[in-house]
Amino acid sequence: MNTIRLGVVGLGRGFVLTLPALRRDPRIALGAAFDPRPEASDRFAAEFSATGYASLDDLLADSAIDAVYIASPHEWHAAQAIAALAAGKHVLVEKPMAVSVAECAAMVRAAEDAGRFLIVGPSHGFDEPVRSAATLIASGRFGRVRMVTALNFTDFLYRPRRPAELDTSRGGGVVYSQAAHQVDVVRRLVGQPVTGVRAFVGSWDAARGCEGAYQALLDFADGSGASLTYSGYAHYDSDELVGWISELGYPKQPGRHAATREAIAGLDRAGQEAAKLGRTFGPRFAEDPPAPHHEHFGLIIASCERADLKILPTGIEIHGDEGTDWLAVDPPAAPRAAVIDELAKAVLDSAPPVHGGRWGLETVACCAAILESGRSGAAVDPQTIISNALEQTTP
Amino acid sequence: MNTIRLGVVGLGRGFVLTLPALRRDPRIALGAAFDPRPEASDRFAAEFSATGYASLDDLLADSAIDAVYIASPHEWHAAQAIAALAAGKHVLVEKPMAVSVAECAAMVRAAEDAGRFLIVGPSHGFDEPVRSAATLIASGRFGRVRMVTALNFTDFLYRPRRPAELDTSRGGGVVYSQAAHQVDVVRRLVGQPVTGVRAFVGSWDAARGCEGAYQALLDFADGSGASLTYSGYAHYDSDELVGWISELGYPKQPGRHAATREAIAGLDRAGQEAAKLGRTFGPRFAEDPPAPHHEHFGLIIASCERADLKILPTGIEIHGDEGTDWLAVDPPAAPRAAVIDELAKAVLDSAPPVHGGRWGLETVACCAAILESGRSGAAVDPQTIISNALEQTTP
Repeated sequence: MNTIRLGVVGLGRGFVLTLPALRRDPRIALGAAFDPRPEASDRFAAEFSATGYASLDDLLADSAIDAVYIASPHEWHAAQAIAALAAGKHVLVEKPMAVSVAECAAMVRAAEDAGRFLIVGPSHGFDEPVRSAATLIASGRFGRVRMVTALNFTDFLYRPRRPAELDTSRGGGVVYSQAAHQVDVVRRLVGQPVTGVRAFVGSWDAARGCEGAYQALLDFADGSGASLTYSGYAHYDSDELVGWISELGYPKQPGRHAATREAIAGLDRAGQEAAKLGRTFGPRFAEDPPAPHHEHFGLIIASCERADLKILPTGIEIHGDEGTDWLAVDPPAAPRAAVIDELAKAVLDSAPPVHGGRWGLETVACCAAILESGRSGAAVDPQTIISNALEQTTP
Repeated sequence: MNTIRLGVVGLGRGFVLTLPALRRDPRIALGAAFDPRPEASDRFAAEFSATGYASLDDLLADSAIDAVYIASPHEWHAAQAIAALAAGKHVLVEKPMAVSVAECAAMVRAAEDAGRFLIVGPSHGFDEPVRSAATLIASGRFGRVRMVTALNFTDFLYRPRRPAELDTSRGGGVVYSQAAHQVDVVRRLVGQPVTGVRAFVGSWDAARGCEGAYQALLDFADGSGASLTYSGYAHYDSDELVGWISELGYPKQPGRHAATREAIAGLDRAGQEAAKLGRTFGPRFAEDPPAPHHEHFGLIIASCERADLKILPTGIEIHGDEGTDWLAVDPPAAPRAAVIDELAKAVLDSAPPVHGGRWGLETVACCAAILESGRSGAAVDPQTIISNALEQTTP
């Protein structure tokens, strides 16, 4: 087998962003899709000579499908992934992996019981400059990494949103959705289990009634630490700190955050605002021109014993004992290609994925720990959260 | 009384940095000094028509002296301040106020028992852009402040140092010396008691054997939070983030951190390195040209409900609901003039200082809490540290 026949569940924004990587990877054949919007399924079927199924069960019953890419709303991830794994499919699931630690643990068990790969992504932990920095760090050339600093000020909460995205119990709010990125990035850089989480969580706009900001400290097993700062309420735009490149890798004008707020002013949530959601796949869909730079998630500085690495969407500034070097990272061939590569290598070559189910579970446990520590003020050990959740899944 | 006759204890680097403000404030007359270096005392006496005393006791016995400015090494602050207060002098003491919370509490009691003012400064909490931002925040124009982010990457640990500056038990290390600045800044912006401290503390260069970096979360009584990140090991220079202006307000070239390391490479600590310490007052001393910008302590963003304020050495970027405004802050007439103004208003007009003894005690308690939380991983309440320390001082 040298091609994966992929079934796509959910032809929304996530699929649209991953599509360029799916198209250009010769190891991927888009074989089937399920989406409640028939116009989306129909175009998918026509464009990729594939089957548009009317239900998930029908898609899973298609024995020609090797793996399923779940890009549906967050609250459906767990049930759909578990059904796909039980049907013998490998699964790639968008982040956040699911909306609770218990769901994630059940997904991990389902994958292990079925002997199938479960990969969680894309997240910004897959960004090529982050991968390059992790490789540099792991080489030991600059000594051990001791402290990571991550900071991102975005307009996340004021982009058009589905109601569930502003409801923490349904996987909304910035902790599950956005901290998952920062946690993935710093975990990839440090390469150690997270043993403690201490956090402040802020919720200060009743009109967008969920957590919108956090500041967190992560403690790692080897004694290193990371600080995460995130505001989805931001008026300030920290893309300034990475050369005015947007999260998706495009050049960006300053001052967009006020425009974001203006665009939703006066709209009613369920109706008018939903109508402005990011483009989904369908009859009138056209792909964006490719982004000239890598995706990113704000300012990231990895402090090693003998260098600070500042990770940018274009490369890595290496501030070392003897001065500053620049390590360019080649522009992306396609966004999110690394995720598809990880899926293909796992399914075709049995290469264990970095971002497997247990990886995703630990990231979600860190997010849960941020919420819990934000409420209680106490330090929370995500490893305890993980073992408790896995224990609950044992038959 | 409309002039304060000031006695200066310690004619070192602190005094040199404050001298321009002392010179130009008509309410200050430099009346006496004590410094173990006779060449420094002699020049002081000659230049200011003042008395150079051979001991602190002699200076304190001078009834013409109204107030004492203590700018000696940190480990002497407490004993000298308490002696000065007992002698009926008002006291301005450099930060860190002292090297332990117990010492600070004893200083607070001494001031209150003597009925004299005790002011702790300068610190970057006095910087004029910070004061302007605090005033803006307190106006309520942007709603409440909910989260403050402070980040500073410096070469602090690699500048020439006295051995005590690298010894935590003697007031060295970055927590007492540098966190005191960040804590002062965020406390000034939030204007609420600190009720919890959670921290990571890093120590990763055995050749400079003290804490050199930290990441801390501060919880405030009103539910707002602050994140502090500091590295004194830094290869990266965060002055980049404030327009390449140095901590003292001068234009700065990129790439200075490597030069700092190079300058001390191969020097033995007590001898050759000590010889390169920052200039002190003495026969060959000449004042620097005035700094064109305000002093600063790195990146500071105050997130209010309706605006993020980015505080720079030249003014404040106000990122609000409708876009970005720039509030220029007039260039400084003299660095550190605000400290001398606070001293003069207290002594001459009985105006309660912002940065009084209890303020300084809380900042040092926060520093102690950072060290304790860094060791234990637990949240530490600085208010408990303060009450316990004050209780110990009760007769």
